[in-house]
Amino acid sequence: MKLNSNYDNLKQNYLFATIEQKVAEFKANNPERELIYMGIGDVTLPLSKSVTEATKAAADEMATAAGFRGYGPYRGYGFLLDAIAGYYAKRGVDLCHEEIFVGDGAKTDTACFSDIFAKENVIAVSDPVYPVYFDSNIMDGREVVLIAATRENGFLPMPSEDLKADVIYLCSPSNPTGAVYTKEQLKVWVDFANKNDALILFDAAYEAYITDPSLPRSIFEVEGSRTCAVEFCSLSKNAGFTGTRASYVIIPKELERDGKNIGKLWLRRQSTKFNGTPYIIQRATEAVFTEEGQREVAEMVGYYQENARMLVDAFTEFGIFFTGGVNSPYIWFEAPKGKTSWEFFDLLLNEVGIVSTPGAGFGVNGEGFLRLTSFNTHENTARAVELLKKVL
Amino acid sequence: MKLNSNYDNLKQNYLFATIEQKVAEFKANNPERELIYMGIGDVTLPLSKSVTEATKAAADEMATAAGFRGYGPYRGYGFLLDAIAGYYAKRGVDLCHEEIFVGDGAKTDTACFSDIFAKENVIAVSDPVYPVYFDSNIMDGREVVLIAATRENGFLPMPSEDLKADVIYLCSPSNPTGAVYTKEQLKVWVDFANKNDALILFDAAYEAYITDPSLPRSIFEVEGSRTCAVEFCSLSKNAGFTGTRASYVIIPKELERDGKNIGKLWLRRQSTKFNGTPYIIQRATEAVFTEEGQREVAEMVGYYQENARMLVDAFTEFGIFFTGGVNSPYIWFEAPKGKTSWEFFDLLLNEVGIVSTPGAGFGVNGEGFLRLTSFNTHENTARAVELLKKVL
Repeated sequence: MKLNSNYDNLKQNYLFATIEQKVAEFKANNPERELIYMGIGDVTLPLSKSVTEATKAAADEMATAAGFRGYGPYRGYGFLLDAIAGYYAKRGVDLCHEEIFVGDGAKTDTACFSDIFAKENVIAVSDPVYPVYFDSNIMDGREVVLIAATRENGFLPMPSEDLKADVIYLCSPSNPTGAVYTKEQLKVWVDFANKNDALILFDAAYEAYITDPSLPRSIFEVEGSRTCAVEFCSLSKNAGFTGTRASYVIIPKELERDGKNIGKLWLRRQSTKFNGTPYIIQRATEAVFTEEGQREVAEMVGYYQENARMLVDAFTEFGIFFTGGVNSPYIWFEAPKGKTSWEFFDLLLNEVGIVSTPGAGFGVNGEGFLRLTSFNTHENTARAVELLKKVL
Repeated sequence: MKLNSNYDNLKQNYLFATIEQKVAEFKANNPERELIYMGIGDVTLPLSKSVTEATKAAADEMATAAGFRGYGPYRGYGFLLDAIAGYYAKRGVDLCHEEIFVGDGAKTDTACFSDIFAKENVIAVSDPVYPVYFDSNIMDGREVVLIAATRENGFLPMPSEDLKADVIYLCSPSNPTGAVYTKEQLKVWVDFANKNDALILFDAAYEAYITDPSLPRSIFEVEGSRTCAVEFCSLSKNAGFTGTRASYVIIPKELERDGKNIGKLWLRRQSTKFNGTPYIIQRATEAVFTEEGQREVAEMVGYYQENARMLVDAFTEFGIFFTGGVNSPYIWFEAPKGKTSWEFFDLLLNEVGIVSTPGAGFGVNGEGFLRLTSFNTHENTARAVELLKKVL
């Protein structure tokens, strides 16, 4: 038998697995040193009260004959579809149940969505990019073209006239650069996709960090998007669900390509290769969208935003070029003195005990940059700022 | 852009979606009629006390700063890997952590596992078969050969000399027929796979229903299997996790094909396209493997086995040919009077209000048969037996 040889075209390790390994080695050699983790985008605040109560209530319900639930509906339970539709309605985006698909994470959803695409499609991703968009398509043997996100374009690449792409991944606020597209910029992408029979896969995982009301939190705030875009969103970064796992995909019911309905094809994929998000977790997710749940989310996001503000102030003071930190939990900054990403990653780890993510791990244009996250405590973030002063 | 045209080669609907639709139509036309659901293999007993308590304790833990967990290890938490290894050890199967991969369901795991195979592999599945093995490979454009499972071979097909297959799916106890391979029969398959460079994907989802101690509950009880087999198991049918979602995949660490290590390739797939089973659910799953949890599982399985026994007695009395019911939660029986599967499905639904699964939905050789599940209450099963008398 033969294995999928496309895997040979991947880097040996997923980026964060490599970082994990470097950190493990450092800890083995320096057991007494304490580290501040600002590398992987993992949250630290506990689950909120509404979420915890809903989880426990659902567990109690599942322990009764009347309340027990087995296999759930393929798209997710109606109560959760209602809650998600209600969330979108607040921003003037109308969705019906048939347009919402509950999943177990935006990583799974964005990585698996390409199952429904032909192999010969050309995929466009920005460089630097969240590795999952790139790797999942390489694993499938598709051609991936890179669109340069650079200091010059504010890390917000736009379509050039000669771009040939069938599927375009956009992430805004961007992971890793923290840059955010305006409505006008997204409209250019939407027009490009509609004109060129392309599909936009829009990752809105960080939408809760947008504070500027003029910036779009959903691509469906942009006219024309319903005929060219699919949106992905995660509960990981707003409600702290990185270890709890919930997400949703929005596919407008009229969205078609190649003579077929995209939502129906995705439903066929999901009903064959997935059996739904646990009932208990769907109830926990529902709680996030209640009035009280949203108040808690705002508080949680506000806490991380305060950390981001501390980092923004520090980098401004240091006179180091950076993007993000505003409307985003990520700070993307230039390594000082012409150092490479991995050189400065090692220096931060070894000299001051800060775990960052090297920009080069996200693509060629990430070289010379690093990403820091605001997902830590105020205390650790303040300590990190003092430590950064020593090396910047 | 082009969509994956392999989807055109699928039946329009997943089998159980078709049944759901027929039932919905019946209910709309007969709102006063009560139905007994013995179609889809969905459990009905509530989650056990240990599982519920563990779920709630984990939710409380996640609500504290010290107990909060974000992204988990890609293979699953150590505590759960320990628990699963302990479960196998009881049967004399030694596993290390690196050989266990926690997932969110055997459907997801078996459907996605083929991601790591080349497209040109030939896949062998029995006919009749659990539709997911077949459909997931058709979606990927692979050639699927059917091995006839018939009344003549006791619905336990064996390899013929001229079988050409790179990957072989075996499900024992079988879904849908309830037939169970002996160790000697599995040894023939293992020898075939080792000799022909093939890989066996062994689905043990129903192993908890085996009461005959001479029958293998894991393929790893069979000599030679570590160099040719991957095992899948689910918590759905033993611990009632159809709505709670947990599973595990066992890949021996020495298992190689095409010069590559299968476990490493699956880890690469999972770390890119999955982000783990929720921490709370992993704690719930751990509880299933405790002494008390196992006692509860035995009770739950025993309840369904009693239903199966009632059905076995009834079909024996009716003089209708059937398999399963012993060592399996499924009864696979022949439709009377030469009726087709769907004809008798309609008759059962319309005349006595029993929802079954037509055997023809599982493959050509399923024609003329139907599957009933024991996953209902004693009361409903007893009622179903009385109703079946009227039409058999």
